[in-house]
Amino acid sequence: MPQYMDVHHGMKGLTADQLMEAHRADLAIESEESVHFEKAWADPESGTVFCLSEAPSAEAVQRVHERTGHRADEVHPVPLTV
Amino acid sequence: MPQYMDVHHGMKGLTADQLMEAHRADLAIESEESVHFEKAWADPESGTVFCLSEAPSAEAVQRVHERTGHRADEVHPVPLTV
Repeated sequence: MPQYMDVHHGMKGLTADQLMEAHRADLAIESEESVHFEKAWADPESGTVFCLSEAPSAEAVQRVHERTGHRADEVHPVPLTV
Repeated sequence: MPQYMDVHHGMKGLTADQLMEAHRADLAIESEESVHFEKAWADPESGTVFCLSEAPSAEAVQRVHERTGHRADEVHPVPLTV
């Protein structure tokens, strides 16, 4: 399954609890889109969040994020890893 | 040790070999800055590369990338993970 890295901007001041809550909301419905969110990293100072997922398409990743109320600003397929 | 996610833009057409070579160059000198590059993901279509590291500071991350010839466009501390 392809991997994706999506990026959210404008999340300044995000707390650990808010990140956890958003991630849990994604996990709760991700299987309906055959997506799995593996990990997320947040920089609350600049308001940037990075989410790593396995998914059938970028659109599927975005659909999960949209349904849980936090649309991604960028969804990148990341076919190369090291 | 704090974690950082740095982002490189403008890497359109990057190949798996080029990513590997860049990562190896970083690994070869990272200990001089007490940095460890854990993982990198690349989207050759948009030309975006994401590097995850453990480091004493964002400046240390950038110094390694500069010395190996690929300065990052953004270096984000990512104190929150899930």
